Amino acid sequence: MLFVQPDHYVYRMLYSQGISMEALEIGHSEMENPRAVWRLFASHYHLFRGTPTRMWLDYAFQELFGLYDRLNERNADAYYDRISELLATDGFRPRALYDRFGIEVLATTDSPLDSLDDHAAIRSSGWSGRIVPTFRPDPVVDPEFHGFSDRIQALGEMTGEDSTRWPGYLAALRKSRERFRALGCTATDHGHPTAQTADLNDQEASALFDSILSGQADHAQQELFRAQMLTEMAKMSLEDGLVMQIHPGSVRNHNHRVFERFGRDTGADIPQQTNYVDALRPLLNRVGNEPALTIILFTLDESTYSRELAPLAGHYPCLRLGPPWWFHDSPEGMMRFREQVTETAGFYNIVGFNDDTRAFLSIPARHDVARRIDCSFLARLVAEHRLDEEEAYELARELTTGLVKRAYRL
Amino acid sequence: MLFVQPDHYVYRMLYSQGISMEALEIGHSEMENPRAVWRLFASHYHLFRGTPTRMWLDYAFQELFGLYDRLNERNADAYYDRISELLATDGFRPRALYDRFGIEVLATTDSPLDSLDDHAAIRSSGWSGRIVPTFRPDPVVDPEFHGFSDRIQALGEMTGEDSTRWPGYLAALRKSRERFRALGCTATDHGHPTAQTADLNDQEASALFDSILSGQADHAQQELFRAQMLTEMAKMSLEDGLVMQIHPGSVRNHNHRVFERFGRDTGADIPQQTNYVDALRPLLNRVGNEPALTIILFTLDESTYSRELAPLAGHYPCLRLGPPWWFHDSPEGMMRFREQVTETAGFYNIVGFNDDTRAFLSIPARHDVARRIDCSFLARLVAEHRLDEEEAYELARELTTGLVKRAYRL
Amino acid sequence: MLFVQPDHYVYRMLYSQGISMEALEIGHSEMENPRAVWRLFASHYHLFRGTPTRMWLDYAFQELFGLYDRLNERNADAYYDRISELLATDGFRPRALYDRFGIEVLATTDSPLDSLDDHAAIRSSGWSGRIVPTFRPDPVVDPEFHGFSDRIQALGEMTGEDSTRWPGYLAALRKSRERFRALGCTATDHGHPTAQTADLNDQEASALFDSILSGQADHAQQELFRAQMLTEMAKMSLEDGLVMQIHPGSVRNHNHRVFERFGRDTGADIPQQTNYVDALRPLLNRVGNEPALTIILFTLDESTYSRELAPLAGHYPCLRLGPPWWFHDSPEGMMRFREQVTETAGFYNIVGFNDDTRAFLSIPARHDVARRIDCSFLARLVAEHRLDEEEAYELARELTTGLVKRAYRL
Repeated sequence: MLFVQPDHYVYRMLYSQGISMEALEIGHSEMENPRAVWRLFASHYHLFRGTPTRMWLDYAFQELFGLYDRLNERNADAYYDRISELLATDGFRPRALYDRFGIEVLATTDSPLDSLDDHAAIRSSGWSGRIVPTFRPDPVVDPEFHGFSDRIQALGEMTGEDSTRWPGYLAALRKSRERFRALGCTATDHGHPTAQTADLNDQEASALFDSILSGQADHAQQELFRAQMLTEMAKMSLEDGLVMQIHPGSVRNHNHRVFERFGRDTGADIPQQTNYVDALRPLLNRVGNEPALTIILFTLDESTYSRELAPLAGHYPCLRLGPPWWFHDSPEGMMRFREQVTETAGFYNIVGFNDDTRAFLSIPARHDVARRIDCSFLARLVAEHRLDEEEAYELARELTTGLVKRAYRL
Repeated sequence: MLFVQPDHYVYRMLYSQGISMEALEIGHSEMENPRAVWRLFASHYHLFRGTPTRMWLDYAFQELFGLYDRLNERNADAYYDRISELLATDGFRPRALYDRFGIEVLATTDSPLDSLDDHAAIRSSGWSGRIVPTFRPDPVVDPEFHGFSDRIQALGEMTGEDSTRWPGYLAALRKSRERFRALGCTATDHGHPTAQTADLNDQEASALFDSILSGQADHAQQELFRAQMLTEMAKMSLEDGLVMQIHPGSVRNHNHRVFERFGRDTGADIPQQTNYVDALRPLLNRVGNEPALTIILFTLDESTYSRELAPLAGHYPCLRLGPPWWFHDSPEGMMRFREQVTETAGFYNIVGFNDDTRAFLSIPARHDVARRIDCSFLARLVAEHRLDEEEAYELARELTTGLVKRAYRL
Repeated sequence: MLFVQPDHYVYRMLYSQGISMEALEIGHSEMENPRAVWRLFASHYHLFRGTPTRMWLDYAFQELFGLYDRLNERNADAYYDRISELLATDGFRPRALYDRFGIEVLATTDSPLDSLDDHAAIRSSGWSGRIVPTFRPDPVVDPEFHGFSDRIQALGEMTGEDSTRWPGYLAALRKSRERFRALGCTATDHGHPTAQTADLNDQEASALFDSILSGQADHAQQELFRAQMLTEMAKMSLEDGLVMQIHPGSVRNHNHRVFERFGRDTGADIPQQTNYVDALRPLLNRVGNEPALTIILFTLDESTYSRELAPLAGHYPCLRLGPPWWFHDSPEGMMRFREQVTETAGFYNIVGFNDDTRAFLSIPARHDVARRIDCSFLARLVAEHRLDEEEAYELARELTTGLVKRAYRL
């Protein structure tokens, strides 16, 4: 089912109130009883009161499906039928919605081991939409991924490099990035537990890589390797122009039992305190003063907005801040972000809004919410005579498209 | 004196401005010169401007004593006389106020070593009010309490168990909980320096207990023991249905000199950073997926609201968040709480308002403030078309009584 | 140039957007092409939208120079000419501006090694303005300062004490403080990386000092020495009545490359997490209960406002909170401060507004912003019936001058 299963915001909340993952058929590739899941969801729709999920869903129900009565137990079937009916029409096919939503670019995140065949197929289909891959090397850069050394092997085979040695491994990554760029990729993405970076010399890095591949490395060495790889990726970005995104600070698979039964990314990731000041220093001291490099920082730890992120982005030429991420992608979260970073970093060290939704139908709603909050913030500055009205109009456009396109080199 | 002595919010502020504990007769069981203390307080009433204490006191002065002129040096005696006069009347006896305040349940916190005779007496008195004990095992669970091993001994004597061995100790705690339940207790309460939990196997736990009782345990072992005991308490809660409350993060007796002269709880407790993500993991991986278990988390570290507490409560079926606690039990503090947790945890993973005041007369004021702030938050959601008006009315009732009663199984 | 070069808020932002320090002539004692730097600044004035810098600059342009059109590329020269013209007039000489700004006291911060000749000259000039030094001992107290032992030597020579031994070193500092006091100094200032304090006995302190002077001390010992010195300074303050200010939590010279090329304080200082609860405990347990002592705490870590600073200042008689500092000296930052500390510390444990600007012309603007925000906060309390109107008027005056003068003993 399009609304419940792929949206971890949704089943996470339902699970928190005692509804089992089994009842929601999470982990099923094919649903057995989608209507029953839908009814269960509808009868618990009140749980989402006050959450952004509720705003996104209501927006989609109303704007896309013409459903204006609030979803509940009684109208669950009517909703289900109406949505099923419309989804079967041509107007609701993905490319039609892409046009209807006014999307200019849509980026996926992909492993270096991905064939990217889908991307090649889209490009050769003659369709005018712009779907680009994003280079997400976590599976071949983070030694804690299951089957890491097999992946390194596979990376070597795909690129024709000896990826079991440090120089060959780096060469393989370079070639992978090149392959992504050829398909329109403009950015990389890095989801690390912390923002730790390192700047080892070549000999140290090479020895560390050998130790990692041998499978003998302890946690500290694994962390150091991820740290070094962020700096390596930054150096490659300086060469090939890919914009670097860092998404740190999530404790993955916090709930061991759910992880074992339902696998990665089933709603048990919890943010943790994240340090940027010390963690990013090795990378920044290596390449931080290069205006040609762009690194976009995200956070799940709002206490770093005014203390660390805004001061860092307000100084280093390479740094920009990404919009409020994940749990903070809400009206209040967005306002806190603007209020806490603008004073030090201004508007121009922040990339405009972009979202990382897995729920395709929520895209317009998310951008709508972001634009309203940004405009509300701008209006307040105008009302308090801190900004002229014409500046606010210009900024509204910048926050929506200008800054994003320039930051991501689109 | 009813307003100054028992209220640490009050004498803490006066002390911070150079008024000595001696002048306030803190630590006296019988006051020598209550009128002098009252005058001192009245002449410093301006210190409370902008604080919730001021709101609570003004509310009580006005609503209970009909005193509408702001308290000051000049009307101190008139206040004193009026309050003394009314307190001597039947309408101001505790049971009369209980009825007047519309209280449905009032819970005390009690040590497992407490006889609970007062509770038994109330129940056998035929009075219709509902006063219940809360199981607060800190004195027999936290090895840093003075006289810990004597207390363990006493616990054994009270329960007829060999409490000096691990199995007997657990059995004694189980019996204590049973005794509390028989007198209407529905909840436990745990005030630990951190939220650390552990999940040792039986052999490890038993050895740790022996080491603790021997008095040889170091700080780390004491912390590990408290951590293990939180998990033991959670397991017992799963058996007997007592709702578990955790109040972590207070550095007790920060001011050594004041502690030595005036003892525990005389205003020198200071919050510290509190980690929940790693700390709760052992307990949650043991029993966190049990919908039959309810654990209510409190915090003194607001930076955890959006980063840790809301994401945890928005996932684990057993977790609920308690209302803003202690220093954060203020209009701004309550609004920050709603703004920072609702987006991720919704309204239904949060128990409604309850307060832990030691000042009986402040109860109506505290609930009044909480209700106003919650309604202000709901009204904003309605005004921004994020909630329908009828939903807001329903939620206002839920936040006030519905959620609280269900969470605490009252 | 008066607006760009001395103001790290300004060149920091320009640098973050790829403008080189060379183009801004940072580090030049004499500017080669001030008009070119000005044009560069003017053409990037939009970067400051939404920042307090923009408010301060607009205020100065309008109120001091009568320039009401927003600064931009086109009017850059007109601005330049007008400002240059006026700065050459008598009305814009420092003493004239001092009077025009209505300044009552202006304090500089000075090293104990400074001759203070300028201060002596001002006092003997017969001018009525009040310019006082502030005792800032960091260069002779922080072993990580370059040339530390030479400075200790110099301190001994200036004071006639054997500053290479612990008792002589303390005596030399006492004499230095006395010299500052004779020139009107009422306060000290301490800029440490952390708020760590210590309370070693005399023998330990003496041995630590020897180890520091020998140059063999490691980082931990250097930190311990700074920690001990804060307590020593507090003890001296108790003797001589100088008010103590602590400004902790800045990672200095974060950007190694910029530091090497342009030296200290060129815009690469980044805040870090700061702990006060444990860090201040040794000092507070030594002298924290003395009402005759005043210690004013500042922070760059806003997460400590409600968690640590307000509870500490709301208890210890010696503690007061300074206004929002540096990155937080903005409308939103000031409002967050009031909202997060007033509830626990009230208004009277906070010193009113004071700023630490290096940009003389920004003084009126900064005080204007602070007064507006404070009045807005007070007005809200009145509107919500939490404060009477007459109290708000009284507090407005207190926050502006009363509290400041009393806290700094002016």
